[in-house]
Amino acid sequence: MGDSVSSARKRTAFFISDGTGLTVEGIGHSLLAQFRDQQVEQVTVPYVDSEARVNQVLQRIENAARESGLQPIIITSIVSDQIRKQLHQSSALMLDVFESYLAPLATLFGTDPARTVGISHGIADNRRYTARIDAVHFAMDNDDGRRTREFESADIILVGVSRSGKTPTCLYLALQFGLRAANYPITEEDMDSTSLPKILRPFQRKLFGLTIDPRRLVSIRQERRANSRYASPEQCEFEVRQVEQMLRRAQVPYLDATELSVEELATRLMSQAGIERRIG
Amino acid sequence: MGDSVSSARKRTAFFISDGTGLTVEGIGHSLLAQFRDQQVEQVTVPYVDSEARVNQVLQRIENAARESGLQPIIITSIVSDQIRKQLHQSSALMLDVFESYLAPLATLFGTDPARTVGISHGIADNRRYTARIDAVHFAMDNDDGRRTREFESADIILVGVSRSGKTPTCLYLALQFGLRAANYPITEEDMDSTSLPKILRPFQRKLFGLTIDPRRLVSIRQERRANSRYASPEQCEFEVRQVEQMLRRAQVPYLDATELSVEELATRLMSQAGIERRIG
Repeated sequence: MGDSVSSARKRTAFFISDGTGLTVEGIGHSLLAQFRDQQVEQVTVPYVDSEARVNQVLQRIENAARESGLQPIIITSIVSDQIRKQLHQSSALMLDVFESYLAPLATLFGTDPARTVGISHGIADNRRYTARIDAVHFAMDNDDGRRTREFESADIILVGVSRSGKTPTCLYLALQFGLRAANYPITEEDMDSTSLPKILRPFQRKLFGLTIDPRRLVSIRQERRANSRYASPEQCEFEVRQVEQMLRRAQVPYLDATELSVEELATRLMSQAGIERRIG
Repeated sequence: MGDSVSSARKRTAFFISDGTGLTVEGIGHSLLAQFRDQQVEQVTVPYVDSEARVNQVLQRIENAARESGLQPIIITSIVSDQIRKQLHQSSALMLDVFESYLAPLATLFGTDPARTVGISHGIADNRRYTARIDAVHFAMDNDDGRRTREFESADIILVGVSRSGKTPTCLYLALQFGLRAANYPITEEDMDSTSLPKILRPFQRKLFGLTIDPRRLVSIRQERRANSRYASPEQCEFEVRQVEQMLRRAQVPYLDATELSVEELATRLMSQAGIERRIG
């Protein structure tokens, strides 16, 4: 049962893929997050697609084992049987996603897996590629209220105070889901009343608000403009309160961005607003 | 062994998570990409974190089974034991990532998993959050040669012809890896010679090129400005040839973006240029 861990000796987990490594890395992060008390060095090794590369990686794994005295972990999704077999020679604990799941799927389908590398993140088809890139350019062009004449063709328009997380969320929605996401900052000029700014009213159905804990907003704004009025507790509290009133009054749905990552904001707001992805 | 599939009857795969669903969705796409001949409807169901939500999903799964006459597939990473058990009542083929891998890890660590939901995509810590958001704003500000005075603090500067994929790749590098990625388009004015544009020379170590098949470039540019000189085969061929010569002459490493997704471009160039992520 498990070897003991000292702070000096850190176990290493290797996320090994013949492609980008993003999938196994995601699995690895999720699994290891369930063992917070364990100190684990996490290393992603993408594009392991030749005998030479596997041998390099095997060497690295045995070094990690020897230096720490702790059995390393491998999480892998290598497709090639040949390369997987080489990898299985290591002394690490092996969690092999393809080995675990391809067999039951093959049985269900009554057909063998293709064992072809790197299909999942490929550009797949032109239509998908174009939709994605267009969405990215749309998000760039329609960031920060820079342009509003394309709001008509937006899938969603995020609104909120400056630095509430609108820009990264829009870009993520574009890259990951191909959505045309615009954003519009509610600035002080808009706060004389708690009605929606005029420019937004025709698009009420498409609006989604982000709000944020004023103390968190202060700390984010301080990083940007230390000791400014913009970053003062009074100003941040005023802006957040005004915008929340505005959103409630106009019945615009909103999320509190304080504790949420960009991924969480994007997926939660899609789910809450009932917006379907365009790609993926 | 596997039931037969007609084009009218499509099997459904459900990617079910108590968080964003991004990890199980990634696993699902990778696995199903190995069975290209199978028509499978893919559905991601995030935030399944209550008895009511599971019951909804179970209903949806049984509907899909009944309508298609084909056993559905579930790929899941539900953390809560209670909710997992409910889900396991379904008639679908169940690929349960946490069930498969938490036990061997618990044995290795000699400790029980926390079984806490949604840690993996959380904002984790302020430092990481700030680094990521700063990187996104850096990429926005330093897109398309708009600004060059911050090149000094860039981790990488992508160069290439217009529409070779620089912008989405920079944004992805920022969002996923917290890298400060700038980009600079090589335009016709820069093509009188095959030397690097003057503005780029001080940053030669940070440069990375993207090139693209001229025919693909034509089709991308046609979508944007049909029948323009900008999108003509002659112009695209000329630009690509000039830029490739420039990159080779200046010994700037480069990748061919023609067949690569944004994820692949980002991870390959990091690996080729030896750039380490800043977050993740």
